[in-house]
Amino acid sequence: MGLAKQRYTLYCTMAVTVVLILAPVVSAEIIDRESNGATHAGRVFLWIAVILLAAKLSNLVARFGQPTVLGELLVGVVFGNLALVGFYFFEPVREDFVIQFLAELGVVILLFQVGLESDVQKMRHVGPRAFLVALVGVIVPFFLGTFVVGPLLLPGLSFNAHLFLGAILTATSVGITARVFQDLNKLQTPEAQIILGAAIIDDMLGLTILAVVKAIVESGHISFIETGWITGKAVFFLGGAIFLGQLLALRLGRLFSKINPGIGMKFVLAISFGLIFASLAEYIGLAPIVGAFAAGLVLEPVHFRHFNDPNIISDINESVKDAGMEVKQAVSKVMESLSHSHLQDLIKPLSYFLVPIFFVLTGMRVKLDMVFNLPVLMLTLAITMSAVVGKIMAGLVAGRVNKSIVGWGMVPRGEVGLIFAVTGNAMGVVSDEVFSMFVIVIMLTTILPIPILNFLLKRQDAASVPRGLSVR
Amino acid sequence: MGLAKQRYTLYCTMAVTVVLILAPVVSAEIIDRESNGATHAGRVFLWIAVILLAAKLSNLVARFGQPTVLGELLVGVVFGNLALVGFYFFEPVREDFVIQFLAELGVVILLFQVGLESDVQKMRHVGPRAFLVALVGVIVPFFLGTFVVGPLLLPGLSFNAHLFLGAILTATSVGITARVFQDLNKLQTPEAQIILGAAIIDDMLGLTILAVVKAIVESGHISFIETGWITGKAVFFLGGAIFLGQLLALRLGRLFSKINPGIGMKFVLAISFGLIFASLAEYIGLAPIVGAFAAGLVLEPVHFRHFNDPNIISDINESVKDAGMEVKQAVSKVMESLSHSHLQDLIKPLSYFLVPIFFVLTGMRVKLDMVFNLPVLMLTLAITMSAVVGKIMAGLVAGRVNKSIVGWGMVPRGEVGLIFAVTGNAMGVVSDEVFSMFVIVIMLTTILPIPILNFLLKRQDAASVPRGLSVR
Repeated sequence: MGLAKQRYTLYCTMAVTVVLILAPVVSAEIIDRESNGATHAGRVFLWIAVILLAAKLSNLVARFGQPTVLGELLVGVVFGNLALVGFYFFEPVREDFVIQFLAELGVVILLFQVGLESDVQKMRHVGPRAFLVALVGVIVPFFLGTFVVGPLLLPGLSFNAHLFLGAILTATSVGITARVFQDLNKLQTPEAQIILGAAIIDDMLGLTILAVVKAIVESGHISFIETGWITGKAVFFLGGAIFLGQLLALRLGRLFSKINPGIGMKFVLAISFGLIFASLAEYIGLAPIVGAFAAGLVLEPVHFRHFNDPNIISDINESVKDAGMEVKQAVSKVMESLSHSHLQDLIKPLSYFLVPIFFVLTGMRVKLDMVFNLPVLMLTLAITMSAVVGKIMAGLVAGRVNKSIVGWGMVPRGEVGLIFAVTGNAMGVVSDEVFSMFVIVIMLTTILPIPILNFLLKRQDAASVPRGLSVR
Repeated sequence: MGLAKQRYTLYCTMAVTVVLILAPVVSAEIIDRESNGATHAGRVFLWIAVILLAAKLSNLVARFGQPTVLGELLVGVVFGNLALVGFYFFEPVREDFVIQFLAELGVVILLFQVGLESDVQKMRHVGPRAFLVALVGVIVPFFLGTFVVGPLLLPGLSFNAHLFLGAILTATSVGITARVFQDLNKLQTPEAQIILGAAIIDDMLGLTILAVVKAIVESGHISFIETGWITGKAVFFLGGAIFLGQLLALRLGRLFSKINPGIGMKFVLAISFGLIFASLAEYIGLAPIVGAFAAGLVLEPVHFRHFNDPNIISDINESVKDAGMEVKQAVSKVMESLSHSHLQDLIKPLSYFLVPIFFVLTGMRVKLDMVFNLPVLMLTLAITMSAVVGKIMAGLVAGRVNKSIVGWGMVPRGEVGLIFAVTGNAMGVVSDEVFSMFVIVIMLTTILPIPILNFLLKRQDAASVPRGLSVR
């Protein structure tokens, strides 16, 4: 066994090495191809294949007990910084519109999946606590960033820049946390539900904060009407979407199943639901992932009971038609348990295809060259610490659950914080240098929580075995 | 039953109407959003949802006994021409890079699927006949286009333009035909295998012809060395890919299954194989779909026997653990039959998502405004007829199979013909007006064969019931 494992590790290391060596070799070819008039699509096909294979190879981190998302981010960090050692294969990937779109679609699909695994009842149950966590998780980091860390650590910057630092620190990106909980099969825990709820409320609060900060920077004062309007729109959208969705989903399912009761229709209906919600959320200024999560939350297996795969069912019925009653019952039981998770299974291949692109691309945004500048690094670490502290304090109000898990689950700033930083940079408030620093803070808060959450969740598992359900 | 069916039709018509009415209403919103600074991704999400839903609604054509691909193309034709009646929602869709990429990825996935359902042995068996069909299907249309139809119907054009007409008429696009055979569950017939083989050989011949025509237009003479080099590269690629692929697939499958034996890895490995082959084919100048088909051809279920879904299997084993021997055997038989088609099932959701985008976008390229110009229309119909005749003659050399099916299966010019036309247009040989005409010819040859193939295949079915396997 030990020897076999050693051989595995050898194989795997070999495979990783081959990919890492091949990439730059292929890269020269690619640059050559461009001048040969090869179309863009052909290159993107190759990029996707390399990203997917490398992401899968990075599943090796699971051998060290880490969630696979960590591996995908690290692959991204390696790919994104190969230019530092002279390999330029991945440079055009980062800037490519198609890859960026596929990544965004990937995180939308991920949150849709996560929404499917949650349900409205459970979310309502943890609602008040999620709201409290979100509120504290926004107020404390905003205060810390604008009035403490900003003036203290970055005294040379304007008040507006400190405002943006505060705004960036309020963000919560649910993508990473959701994926860690998914990797560890923990999406059904109350901690996960609180974090998901809080992250959505946080997104709405963040939207308001961004509007307020923008108004302050642009005109020097706050319009309470505009602030109220933006918040109202967001609340109205989410409430309306969930209400209308619950009302319509079953009816639409029945209608469409009459046109075509196959699994293709089921898949298209569910995915379109998610995409339309994502698009609507984006339209009113929320992150598309909030809409996708809401869509998943609304859809329940019951909405799809009119759909089935007639081929598989008739195949199976055929194969047991001569068997006894007992056999038939057992088979139908198996089929039932298969169809229950069917919608999730249908989404999975799409998620295998798209989700790694999102996490690898996120990793590629980390620029390691900044790390070699010690003063900048120390400063960045200090800001990161305050970013962590703000969210850990939010976890303290989560009630009778594991507070550290909730706190650390709120730490990742991910793409939401990035949007804030980009906005500040575009408005000329945040200089390019400070922007890079903020990006590192966002990245550290995105990657650090993964091993820590992993540790906390596994420790909770070990501790809760004797106590059973008492944690709930 | 009759009443219920009437009600279905009513529902469906209502649903289609709602989509068609909603689209332009949303369109005004969309144009508004653009100025509101909504990101591109949000809009594309909505477009994809509208395309997928409309494509699924168009499955109604199955009620009239037509393959569903016809419905998807017609939805595209409607969407693409709504601008004629003042609705501009779909105009940016046609030109969008991301949608174009997703469409191209869609047809690559489709041909990969089709390749998975074929196998090398069968292809080798029909090889010589496929080669003959391809050869006749290239020579006759090229001769007809360049020396008969061109000078006769378009006497005002240069010899070079006639050359391009001939080249366009040689093309065979396997996408449409493959989808019709897939819709009717006929991919395993010898006719389908001959068409698939001939289409691939045709693509290699077409590549050579395009190179030759370009050389004649550019320098007035043909370089036999270049022609030989291009052909050799194509043959070498396909042969080498199939040989190496067969050699490596099992080994790679075993290696990767050791890193992670889950279905995610299986999926990624298969898809990456397809994408890399597509990219390689494109690199040497072949259509990416040829590479994808070759990849599918090489992969066999046996390459993936190291992969399984441990969750499902343990779930099922758990649910029958107390049952008798007979039950367990029946269940394991069911599971085996499920896992056999597992790879195809894993690819399906991706194909539900991407393939309709390809066919709807193809339909959107049809410009109906040309149809209202009667002289142009008559001319176009005459060229289309000669395009059909050329390929029908190719069917005559297909040996002991249904020759009409093979002939009509070779008729669609699709995107391959389009590439030729675009090249001619870009070289200044084919004027914009003639280009539009060629595009209509390509579209007619693409849409017409669908109902005809459908009719021929169903008639063959009806006739072959008493004769059983004699057709083979």
